[in-house]
Amino acid sequence: MQSNTFGKAFSITTFGESHGPAIGVVVDGCPPGLAIDLAHIRTELLRRGPGQSHLTTPRQETEDFEILSGIFEGVSTGHPIALIVKNKDHKSEDYLAMKHVFRPSHADLTYQKKYGIRDYRGGGRASARETLARVAGGAIAKQVLAKYQVEIQAFVGQVGHLSLADYTSIDYSGIQENAVRCPDPELATMMEKEIEKAKELGDSLGGVIGCHVLHCPVGLGEPVFDKLEADLAKAMLSIPAARGFDIGAGFASASMYGSAHNDAFDVEGEKIVTKTNHSGGVQGGISNGETIHFKVAFKPVSTIALAQDTIDIKGKKVILEAKGRHDPCVLPRAVPIVEAMAALVVCDHLLRYRCLADFVQGT
Amino acid sequence: MQSNTFGKAFSITTFGESHGPAIGVVVDGCPPGLAIDLAHIRTELLRRGPGQSHLTTPRQETEDFEILSGIFEGVSTGHPIALIVKNKDHKSEDYLAMKHVFRPSHADLTYQKKYGIRDYRGGGRASARETLARVAGGAIAKQVLAKYQVEIQAFVGQVGHLSLADYTSIDYSGIQENAVRCPDPELATMMEKEIEKAKELGDSLGGVIGCHVLHCPVGLGEPVFDKLEADLAKAMLSIPAARGFDIGAGFASASMYGSAHNDAFDVEGEKIVTKTNHSGGVQGGISNGETIHFKVAFKPVSTIALAQDTIDIKGKKVILEAKGRHDPCVLPRAVPIVEAMAALVVCDHLLRYRCLADFVQGT
Amino acid sequence: MQSNTFGKAFSITTFGESHGPAIGVVVDGCPPGLAIDLAHIRTELLRRGPGQSHLTTPRQETEDFEILSGIFEGVSTGHPIALIVKNKDHKSEDYLAMKHVFRPSHADLTYQKKYGIRDYRGGGRASARETLARVAGGAIAKQVLAKYQVEIQAFVGQVGHLSLADYTSIDYSGIQENAVRCPDPELATMMEKEIEKAKELGDSLGGVIGCHVLHCPVGLGEPVFDKLEADLAKAMLSIPAARGFDIGAGFASASMYGSAHNDAFDVEGEKIVTKTNHSGGVQGGISNGETIHFKVAFKPVSTIALAQDTIDIKGKKVILEAKGRHDPCVLPRAVPIVEAMAALVVCDHLLRYRCLADFVQGT
Amino acid sequence: MQSNTFGKAFSITTFGESHGPAIGVVVDGCPPGLAIDLAHIRTELLRRGPGQSHLTTPRQETEDFEILSGIFEGVSTGHPIALIVKNKDHKSEDYLAMKHVFRPSHADLTYQKKYGIRDYRGGGRASARETLARVAGGAIAKQVLAKYQVEIQAFVGQVGHLSLADYTSIDYSGIQENAVRCPDPELATMMEKEIEKAKELGDSLGGVIGCHVLHCPVGLGEPVFDKLEADLAKAMLSIPAARGFDIGAGFASASMYGSAHNDAFDVEGEKIVTKTNHSGGVQGGISNGETIHFKVAFKPVSTIALAQDTIDIKGKKVILEAKGRHDPCVLPRAVPIVEAMAALVVCDHLLRYRCLADFVQGT
Repeated sequence: MQSNTFGKAFSITTFGESHGPAIGVVVDGCPPGLAIDLAHIRTELLRRGPGQSHLTTPRQETEDFEILSGIFEGVSTGHPIALIVKNKDHKSEDYLAMKHVFRPSHADLTYQKKYGIRDYRGGGRASARETLARVAGGAIAKQVLAKYQVEIQAFVGQVGHLSLADYTSIDYSGIQENAVRCPDPELATMMEKEIEKAKELGDSLGGVIGCHVLHCPVGLGEPVFDKLEADLAKAMLSIPAARGFDIGAGFASASMYGSAHNDAFDVEGEKIVTKTNHSGGVQGGISNGETIHFKVAFKPVSTIALAQDTIDIKGKKVILEAKGRHDPCVLPRAVPIVEAMAALVVCDHLLRYRCLADFVQGT
Repeated sequence: MQSNTFGKAFSITTFGESHGPAIGVVVDGCPPGLAIDLAHIRTELLRRGPGQSHLTTPRQETEDFEILSGIFEGVSTGHPIALIVKNKDHKSEDYLAMKHVFRPSHADLTYQKKYGIRDYRGGGRASARETLARVAGGAIAKQVLAKYQVEIQAFVGQVGHLSLADYTSIDYSGIQENAVRCPDPELATMMEKEIEKAKELGDSLGGVIGCHVLHCPVGLGEPVFDKLEADLAKAMLSIPAARGFDIGAGFASASMYGSAHNDAFDVEGEKIVTKTNHSGGVQGGISNGETIHFKVAFKPVSTIALAQDTIDIKGKKVILEAKGRHDPCVLPRAVPIVEAMAALVVCDHLLRYRCLADFVQGT
Repeated sequence: MQSNTFGKAFSITTFGESHGPAIGVVVDGCPPGLAIDLAHIRTELLRRGPGQSHLTTPRQETEDFEILSGIFEGVSTGHPIALIVKNKDHKSEDYLAMKHVFRPSHADLTYQKKYGIRDYRGGGRASARETLARVAGGAIAKQVLAKYQVEIQAFVGQVGHLSLADYTSIDYSGIQENAVRCPDPELATMMEKEIEKAKELGDSLGGVIGCHVLHCPVGLGEPVFDKLEADLAKAMLSIPAARGFDIGAGFASASMYGSAHNDAFDVEGEKIVTKTNHSGGVQGGISNGETIHFKVAFKPVSTIALAQDTIDIKGKKVILEAKGRHDPCVLPRAVPIVEAMAALVVCDHLLRYRCLADFVQGT
Repeated sequence: MQSNTFGKAFSITTFGESHGPAIGVVVDGCPPGLAIDLAHIRTELLRRGPGQSHLTTPRQETEDFEILSGIFEGVSTGHPIALIVKNKDHKSEDYLAMKHVFRPSHADLTYQKKYGIRDYRGGGRASARETLARVAGGAIAKQVLAKYQVEIQAFVGQVGHLSLADYTSIDYSGIQENAVRCPDPELATMMEKEIEKAKELGDSLGGVIGCHVLHCPVGLGEPVFDKLEADLAKAMLSIPAARGFDIGAGFASASMYGSAHNDAFDVEGEKIVTKTNHSGGVQGGISNGETIHFKVAFKPVSTIALAQDTIDIKGKKVILEAKGRHDPCVLPRAVPIVEAMAALVVCDHLLRYRCLADFVQGT
């Protein structure tokens, strides 16, 4: 069944395996007449790309992309935009040894059982390399959102045990200034060391990404199943290695009293605002005009250099000593992925809402 | 746009407002030939229903339902099953005073702004009463799942500051033995007192629900966007007041090393198992045959009796003193709702997977 | 799989069997703030209803409907509108004799084989009675379209061998003036006699419905799969007994030269028009502002009083002498059904197109 | 909104413009473990390709395709299969003169009005070249169907005024033996001459394609909206230049009596059959095991060499003398397109139906 498509009004369909010929995306529903900024797409792909710092996998990919359709004389035509990136620096021979082995906490076993076949090279479709298609699609979504002044900022809030105390007051300018993408420079330095240490140990680390959607208009999201936070949750949990999502006060809200959690309404000039924002910018599933803020938890990377007990395809116990290049911690590279998925959700809901615009009084 | 439907192969479409004539659900995709257990549907509805204990809202509803279609001589026909529950004990006059006031952290403001109109009576479509339609649909999903031996057990793991230490080893028989639905009887007693205290204070409490999917077959879930955990996350965050979701080690995995988090494979007889289950039964988005376990965080109920600052529809500051009946803590009643949404997701993926059954070797 | 829903931006989900408790529809995506005209819905239901003239089945149904949700103080809220009609005058005993017999050209065999079970009473879900749900949903779609001045007019163009010479120049005022709903009064009289004759013979007749969509704005429909004529074709072929669809010059275009078929563009004042309209108002899948006109062919009713060879559920040859009330010719009652399905398609595409409105220059 | 995707269980998403870098398709839902026959895909593409005979456009394209994903060691993996064909022999300069002109009965005006922008080169997205993506996807669908012994045969039944008398008894072996793809060799010769004549006149011709689906299992199609004939109708009307669709006796059924049209059931050995097949293999929207047969009407090609009145983008009247290469009659090349779309519909419904297989007794 169709399962490689995300979004309704603005949708992406992705394809491609880590060591196949190419990774690609088809964006369906991009409004026409938009001057597409290719340099911005490239910047976004490089933010996600491998080899960007000593903290990431050394796989080298220039992430050169080709636009195959949907853009004419630099402008979107309203037709599907297809974009592909050819895979170049894949070393499939590294994976030959793992052809018959199920790597712990990877998709090897589940793919093999589900399909009776799997492309074992570099994780195939389960590789995080698939997310470049999302980042490309998300870049276009960001360009649509820019027309409505909506902006998205994600950042690393936690690596291993090191965590920001507060995920709501963020100096966005600090995010891009270090390899970890943590807005607190001191914490960033500590995180960097922590990642280097894990790398030396042949081990890996998880962490948490925070994300803010700024200037989101009121009214995005649907009352019941397609609540804005529900679609964000799905988007985030669809990212490889993501294990948790919460919005606003999130899991912490579980231990708050209602009187402390409720966001009192107030007025600033003509605008209705909330005095606090424990709701994370979403009430009843619909954006209320405040900053949308949420968190995404990532498990430590499953690929580690340390020897591990596992079994092979015949059910025989073996010791796995993994080869293949990988990141000791995906968090820095996950920042643009989280942003891309958030952009896709918000852009989708924004266009969905516009179809009612003729009918809503006073907006 | 269509947004009141959930699921692809097995879907529910819900309708109805808290104080409207009825709440209903249309189940599309229920396999034919299934003897539908109406008593079981009723039991599930009563588990969710109001007035079931001193901890819940005193609104009285017998939750009598009518089946309008799709069942013939007690058996599903393969056609849509429509089920409605008429609303009886609505006291809309309680809400008249709030007609022009935006209750903090409710959907009042966002609905009004999104649609330019709102049914203010009892929260309208935003009322948790809408979830009875999900519970009815989920009951049918559970009956389909029972054919495959899949079972779902949710429980209250946290109320306010009181929390289970471990969400994975649960004595399921204990869950139904107390009004709170916490499997630990001592903790349950403490939680009960905590809720009574909040009620007396005119305040409200949040908490956390844990949920286990038992005997889930290998292979459910799709690799990229429709990962099983992604669809579960969406399902859970679509529940009113849900604020967070995590699966397996979840947010705690963020501070683990990969070597500690990875679930080593092992063999038990013919069956491949994992020695630990930090993955929560899902790897690469697909069920691996272990117990699926996840958590859902709920914020404290927005309706409190304490006076609150807010504004009215004209933007004037007012003091709100809420009327209307409500729960001081939704957690006990959220247990069957979480189960229903989990059942819908798993049933949907199970049927989706069956369409490939002719093609998968060795399953 | 979900298959009882039609439409994306404006969708209906229908349920119910001919002799079950009720037939119903859930309209999802109706814009908010629309004063819903209940009398108009009723009028539409009665135009479709049984027993409206001596030409139709004598089954008596008042088509009283209940609105269960989505309308507050007479106005649409943006939430799903559920509407049901309880079945009253079902005489299921008429069908007992046919419980084990497959009626020729009915859905009896295919339902039995597909599902292994069937509700044989009155055709169950295959009954044309299901279309009342479409007519109710279509009535609401018409009310949305009225805001954009779009109007839909269907009419009977052929009954048996009697046919209009021209389906494009129609005096709409004549349609409602006779029981057949043929705009040509003389032809209508002949058709009426033809139907009466078929009724006496215990036989049945087919025919053709023509349909015009007036004042349709330019730009509705999508370039590739969701062409306006493709969605209309699906809508029409989903009507029970429909066997063919063509648009503009349709099947007749197959024998025309391009030079004769092409619609030359011209200008009338500020407006671009076409000198002819062989395209039927749609070019490249998208409405061009001319009247959309298409035809739908209906086979003769499968239920006839004459004895027929058939087999029973055990594969034994039997002679069927049908009971149950039925129409000798569905054409008159199909007029509002065709209009309803057309309204649903056009309304869906209109709302879909509105989501791009911010981006299209000069419209 | 997503509109470049067709199918639910087995879906294709297409992209690309006539003179853009490439045309492509993403097949989502192809079952795993299928040895994909690339030579067959190539054969299908060449059957549709330009320049295949003197009757078609002289544009030269080798239709070399690249598989970008979803196939591993020759076998489908269950992941999306992306396939692209680079455009080579486009002569965009031919279209420069038409940049500001709306060609009659083309999509020029409607695209320009809908999007405010259009890629005028070779018709852009409206070009029939887009259909190669469907043929590629359809080839894979045919390979899935072959596992179930389902076979699809389309043929040219009419060109201009020349028509087969009977579309149901076809010698399939004759179809591929002439450039026109008409199963009757004498008629084929006449059609060939008719097309040559139109070409000389600078004019164009339409016609009718017949299509048979052989050995289709009982049970495909859904009762209400997703009737098999409804999805076929949509599929066919989505083909460029298609103007009509009918199934079984189709439009001719409109003038038949029910007693003549009804297909009496009979038994052949263990199998239930019908004595006639006016239903075209589908009853109540569901396949009944007989041959599915339907027709598709195509208008004459809109591009003609003769001078035509039209207007330009500023609304000024101009005379168009078209350049650009084109077919005088699309019928021969439409045969594989009709087959592809039929294969996509039947494959989709076949997989959809398989998800219920565990529940249906006695099939």
